[in-house]
Amino acid sequence: MQAAFDALNALLGDRFTTGASDRALYGQSESHFADMPPDGVAYPETTADVAGIVAICAEHRMPVIGWGAGTSLEGHALAPRGGITVDFSRMNRVLHICADDMLAVVQPGVTREQLNEDLRATGLFFPVDPGANASIGGMASTRASGTTAVRYGTMRDNVLALEAVLADGRTLRTGTRAPKSSTGYDLTGLFVGAEGTLGLITELTLRLRGQPDAISAAVCAFDDMESATQTVILTIQSGIPMARIEFIDATFVRLFNAQNGTDMPQKPHLMVEFHGSSQSTREQAESFGEIVADMGGSAFQWADRPEDRNRLWKMRHNAYYTARAAWPNACAITTDVCVPISKLAQAVRETADDIANSGLPGPILGHVGDGNFHALLLPDRDDPAQIAKAHALAHAMAERALRLGGTVSGEHGIGMGKLKYMDAEHGAGWDVMASVKAALDPQGIMNPGKLLRQT
Amino acid sequence: MQAAFDALNALLGDRFTTGASDRALYGQSESHFADMPPDGVAYPETTADVAGIVAICAEHRMPVIGWGAGTSLEGHALAPRGGITVDFSRMNRVLHICADDMLAVVQPGVTREQLNEDLRATGLFFPVDPGANASIGGMASTRASGTTAVRYGTMRDNVLALEAVLADGRTLRTGTRAPKSSTGYDLTGLFVGAEGTLGLITELTLRLRGQPDAISAAVCAFDDMESATQTVILTIQSGIPMARIEFIDATFVRLFNAQNGTDMPQKPHLMVEFHGSSQSTREQAESFGEIVADMGGSAFQWADRPEDRNRLWKMRHNAYYTARAAWPNACAITTDVCVPISKLAQAVRETADDIANSGLPGPILGHVGDGNFHALLLPDRDDPAQIAKAHALAHAMAERALRLGGTVSGEHGIGMGKLKYMDAEHGAGWDVMASVKAALDPQGIMNPGKLLRQT
Repeated sequence: MQAAFDALNALLGDRFTTGASDRALYGQSESHFADMPPDGVAYPETTADVAGIVAICAEHRMPVIGWGAGTSLEGHALAPRGGITVDFSRMNRVLHICADDMLAVVQPGVTREQLNEDLRATGLFFPVDPGANASIGGMASTRASGTTAVRYGTMRDNVLALEAVLADGRTLRTGTRAPKSSTGYDLTGLFVGAEGTLGLITELTLRLRGQPDAISAAVCAFDDMESATQTVILTIQSGIPMARIEFIDATFVRLFNAQNGTDMPQKPHLMVEFHGSSQSTREQAESFGEIVADMGGSAFQWADRPEDRNRLWKMRHNAYYTARAAWPNACAITTDVCVPISKLAQAVRETADDIANSGLPGPILGHVGDGNFHALLLPDRDDPAQIAKAHALAHAMAERALRLGGTVSGEHGIGMGKLKYMDAEHGAGWDVMASVKAALDPQGIMNPGKLLRQT
Repeated sequence: MQAAFDALNALLGDRFTTGASDRALYGQSESHFADMPPDGVAYPETTADVAGIVAICAEHRMPVIGWGAGTSLEGHALAPRGGITVDFSRMNRVLHICADDMLAVVQPGVTREQLNEDLRATGLFFPVDPGANASIGGMASTRASGTTAVRYGTMRDNVLALEAVLADGRTLRTGTRAPKSSTGYDLTGLFVGAEGTLGLITELTLRLRGQPDAISAAVCAFDDMESATQTVILTIQSGIPMARIEFIDATFVRLFNAQNGTDMPQKPHLMVEFHGSSQSTREQAESFGEIVADMGGSAFQWADRPEDRNRLWKMRHNAYYTARAAWPNACAITTDVCVPISKLAQAVRETADDIANSGLPGPILGHVGDGNFHALLLPDRDDPAQIAKAHALAHAMAERALRLGGTVSGEHGIGMGKLKYMDAEHGAGWDVMASVKAALDPQGIMNPGKLLRQT
C-alpha cells in the first residue's frame, strides 16, 4: 500500500492525502450505513490525473471510489474495502455550452445548480432535478432523476456522450454530438447507472432544453391518498405533459407548514408544474383542474411568480432534511420503489397502511408521475426494535414493488443498500452484469462492494 | 454440421429447412451487398424454440443470425459465415396491451403496422416509424428511428423491457414495467442496437403514446436547400414540439409528383406534422409558419384529413422504392449520417455539392429534426466506375459527419456496411464493445461479421 501512496504522492503532491480526518469525512454517507473510510483521498484536476490515479490503483490492486457531492442515499461512495476515494470537486468546470445544439460539456464535479446558474443567460436549462444539489457525474452514475423526469426523462435520457477512465487506466469516449446514433452498443447508456463500477466518468455532454416561455405551479389538496394517486394516474393517462407532479402526504404537509409558515390543509397534496407557452400552460392547467375536481380535490394555490415557485420547490426539495430535523433522534431509512402507474394507488395505499400499523414515523412523498415514491422511515436510532421494524417495512415495500411489476429503485440506485434485491429483480440479468463487469474490470477495483454480487 | 441439422430437425421438424431456395432467400438483402446465404433456416414459435436453436448452435459452434422482416439496409441479416438464420415471422403475436400503463408486450416478429393496427381502438399508438414495415425485434436490434423520432425518440427510448436468449441458450429478462429504474446496468439499452450480436430478442415491452387529439400535416417549398435546413434548425431551437419534420430535395419532389400525380413546385420541401390538442397544434403551426415565412418558404399545402395525411406519409415512406423504380438499372447505395443540428446546413450543402459534381443521381432526404439525412446514391449497376464514385461519395459523407461531431449512422446501424468507420467514430470504445461481446458470446456465434472488429 505504501508503494501506491508514494506513487499517488508523486503524481498529485498535496492533492493526495491519507490524513485521518479526510479519510473519516469520505467514510460517511447521507444514509444509515456505518462509516467506511478509504485509505486515501485524491483530488484530480484533469482527466490525465484520473487516468494516472486509476493506473496506480490498478497496479497495486487498490479499490477506486468516485465521490461527487456526497449526496448518495445508498452508500455508493463508501469504501467498504478501503482504497482511494477520488473526489471530483476540483473538476467542476462547465467546459462548453453550445446553445445552437442545446448541449453543454461539463466536468463531473459540476453541480446541477451551478450548471443552471451558468445557463441562465442562454435561455436553456438542464432539466434533471433530484432535489439535492448533486454533482452531474454522481447523477449520471446513479442514473438519477427526480421531480422533472416525468417530462424530461432521467439521466439516461439527458447524457448524450461521455468520457470515462477505465479500470486499466485507458480513457474512453462514448457518443457524439449528434442527437441520435445507431453505431453499436450504447456505451453511454452502459456507464450511466453503472455507479462507478466500470470506470470513472471524467466528462459529460448533456442535452439542454429551452427555458419555457411560461411556467405555472400549484398545490392542491385531497381528502385521501387514493384520490390524489388516482388523479396522478388519470393525468398521466390523459397525456397532459406535466413538468412536475409530486405527491406529499399529510405528515409532510404538517412539517412544511410548521417549517415554512404555509397554511396548506393537513391533507395529502399534489404539487404540480406546467411548462409551455402561456396558452398551452393555461390549457394544461385547465385539463388538470378538471381531473382534480372530478376526484374531489380542492384548495388550489397557484404559484406563478418565480419567487413563489422557488419557495414551493425549495420546500419540496428540503423534505428529507425537514423530516430529519423533526425527528432528530431518528435514523433515516430511505426507500425508493417505482411501480407501473396502474399499480401506484395500490402500492401507496398498502405502504401507508403498513407504516400506520407499525407505529413508526414514515411520511411518504414521490415523483408519482413516474410511479416512483419514497417513504422516509424514521425509527429511533437507539431502539434496535424500531430499526428492525423499519427495515422490515422497507423490505415489504421492495417486495411489493417487484410483485406489482416494478423496481426496487426508481432513482437512488443500488449501492450497498439494495444489493439484496438484485437477484429477485434481475435473475440471470445480474449474472450478465457480472460478466460485463469482469470483462471491463477483471481485478474488480472499481467501486467494489456495490451493485454487483459480492464474492 | 449434419449433427447440428439433425438436432434442429428433431427440435423443430418441418420448421427447420436446409433447402436451397429458402437459404437463397435469406441470403439476400435490401442493399448492395452480395448474397450470403445461411446453411439453414429455422422458424421458432416460442422462446423455448429459440433457446433450443441457440443451444444447438452453441454446441456445434454454428453462427446464429436473427431475421425480422428483411428490411435492413446494412446487411444485418446476411450470413457471411453461414450458420442458421432464425426467422421470427411466426413469433408475431401482440401478447398483451396494457392501456392503463400505456405499454404493449409483443413478440419480435410483430411488425410496426400490425401493432398499430391492433392498437387502433385503444386510443394509443407505437410511435417509432422507420418507414419500412419492419419487425419490432429488428427495429430494436438496429436501434431504428425514422420520421417521428424528433418528438417520440428512437427505439432506445421506447423499449422498456425485453427478453433475450443469450449465446449459451440462457434466457434473460431485462427491465420492468415501471417507467424508470436505477437498478444496475441498463441491459435493455445494451441489447437495443446490439444487432443480434449479444443474443436474440424474443419479447419486447414497448412504451405507447396517446393518439393525439389533433394532427395536422403540411408541406412547404423553399427556393434552396439552405433555407429549408435553416428553417429546421430554427424550428428545433425554438422548441416547437414537431412530431415530424422531414426534408426532401427537388429531385425527390419531381419523382413524387410523377409517381403520385401531385403538383408540388420542383424545389426543396419540408414535410411536417403537428400533434397535440386542436389549440396547441394550431399554435405550433403558427410558430412554424412564422419561421418558414422568415426563411422565404412558400406553397404551404395542408393535409388535415387522415386520408390526405396518409397519402403524404405514404409518399414519403415509399421514397426509397420510388427512386429505385426511377433508376431501374441502378444499384442503391444508402447513406445515413447524423450531425449536430448546428452543422446540418453545412453537411447537407456540402453533400449536395459533392453529388452534383459527381454527375450521379443522388437525391437527398432526411429526418432533419434529428440532424439525420440520407443521400440515395444510384450508380449504374453495370458501371464499376460509377459504383466506385458512389462509394467515394458515401465515404466522404461519413468522414464529414465525423468531422462535424456527428455519427456515421443515425438509424440504419452498422451491420457489414459501416464497419470501416467504427474505429474512427469510437476509438477505444470499439474495443470495449469487443470486450462486452467476448464476455457474453465467447464463441462468437451470435451474428458474426457484424458491428464488431472482424478477427
